[in-house]
Amino acid sequence: MTRIAVCAPSAPIAREDAERVKALALAEFPEAELVIHEQCFATEGHFAGSDAVRLEALVECANDPSIDAVWFARGGYGACRIAEEALERFDHAAQGKMFLGYSDAGYLLGALYRERIGKPVHGPMLGDMRREGGDEAIRRALAHLGGDRSGLEPSLGAEKHPVVAFNLMTLAMLCGTRLMPGLAGHVVMIEEVSEYLYAVDRLFFHATAHLGGIAGLRLGRVSDVPQNDRPFGAEALDIARYWCERHAIPFLGEADIGHDAANRIVPFGLAEARQGQ
Amino acid sequence: MTRIAVCAPSAPIAREDAERVKALALAEFPEAELVIHEQCFATEGHFAGSDAVRLEALVECANDPSIDAVWFARGGYGACRIAEEALERFDHAAQGKMFLGYSDAGYLLGALYRERIGKPVHGPMLGDMRREGGDEAIRRALAHLGGDRSGLEPSLGAEKHPVVAFNLMTLAMLCGTRLMPGLAGHVVMIEEVSEYLYAVDRLFFHATAHLGGIAGLRLGRVSDVPQNDRPFGAEALDIARYWCERHAIPFLGEADIGHDAANRIVPFGLAEARQGQ
Repeated sequence: MTRIAVCAPSAPIAREDAERVKALALAEFPEAELVIHEQCFATEGHFAGSDAVRLEALVECANDPSIDAVWFARGGYGACRIAEEALERFDHAAQGKMFLGYSDAGYLLGALYRERIGKPVHGPMLGDMRREGGDEAIRRALAHLGGDRSGLEPSLGAEKHPVVAFNLMTLAMLCGTRLMPGLAGHVVMIEEVSEYLYAVDRLFFHATAHLGGIAGLRLGRVSDVPQNDRPFGAEALDIARYWCERHAIPFLGEADIGHDAANRIVPFGLAEARQGQ
Repeated sequence: MTRIAVCAPSAPIAREDAERVKALALAEFPEAELVIHEQCFATEGHFAGSDAVRLEALVECANDPSIDAVWFARGGYGACRIAEEALERFDHAAQGKMFLGYSDAGYLLGALYRERIGKPVHGPMLGDMRREGGDEAIRRALAHLGGDRSGLEPSLGAEKHPVVAFNLMTLAMLCGTRLMPGLAGHVVMIEEVSEYLYAVDRLFFHATAHLGGIAGLRLGRVSDVPQNDRPFGAEALDIARYWCERHAIPFLGEADIGHDAANRIVPFGLAEARQGQ
């Protein structure tokens, strides 16, 4: 049995989505037990409850010795407000756990990786059930949480460097903060959603200035780009190549990650560590 | 006579706006001669011409010894792509000039201040003619360019610390890059436009993590906040206070700057330097 705690450090989820994912898990993943924290349904302004409420739920899930993995419910915004304090309170029970999520959960993945706590993994969240084809994303996540490695991002098989994956905005905001891990020698995968291409270019200006010494960069999907009053004049791949070249960062091509149901799984760190996850 | 060169390191302006500002200057500021670079009307994708075209125009204006001041035409996006190379090519003729602009021009103001080149000043741009009451913004800018200090941001009169002013997004993107000036001991004024409050909060998370050691922060107007699917739960002033408190930055109240016609003028640096500008 794998006991998976779900909490929401950012925005809340709907009960019906939680019920659908529980039903899918019950039908197809009998070895998985989902423990969905009531805090996932709390709301306070933008967030799934106040900072204090989100913090307590996260610490409770991470420090519960009967729990094997922490699955973040959904992105949105808010994890950066509680990440530092939460990690200070994580105890030895957090050490062995997988922490799975992406998007706004990247603040926590980055900080966990920096502090060498647990196994941060970039991959689908419970809230992805809402997407078109979202049940496939949920299956990929539940399989990975149960030890099945078939959902890994395809380039990882041949990758000799340690790897991380981030939403571009999240990574840009992490840079230079107390949550930012050292990424020298790493392959960094980046994806983005719902940003104008000029904003993607601006975020690349910023993020690549902080990524000196990385082994290379891969670009995931840049999706749902809003229509601007004029075309930007370059595509997302051109933007990534341009800023990599300016900072002498090897551009390694595309990555099979993104804000969509096809989002593949990227455990942070080295390949040998991935085998054990 | 004050010869003012106008160039567009970011997005282009319309010829009719340039004509209206020239007419206003001719009628009310006979001592000002506006030299509007043809590059201001160039377009290439998002930008006022390619990086090379914008770079050449900026360097030409900065290095022309017959020019007293460089007035940025408009913000948008693009100055960060050419700022570093432009400043490397600035010569002694750039040293005595005022450089006036805000928003995306903040990348240049910040880099100039870092390199101690010229007199960077945060204030209205030619393109502000389009705003409601924009003629007042243009008058304020032209008066300042001609030596009249009546348009200064009101708190500057009593301020003993050196001061800078930035758009929040621009400052957040500057942090940690080769364009970022050291701001220890400075009062930092911040304004924002057209960002969701959750994005303002996120930018404050990032920017304040980089502003350790500043003398204090003042918040200008945070305007045209888009309506989100749910209220954020705090106002912009609360957000600024919250992040200042987390980083032990004195919050000094409001600043009379913003993306609007009332945008007052903030010369970078110390008050004694302001007297001479």
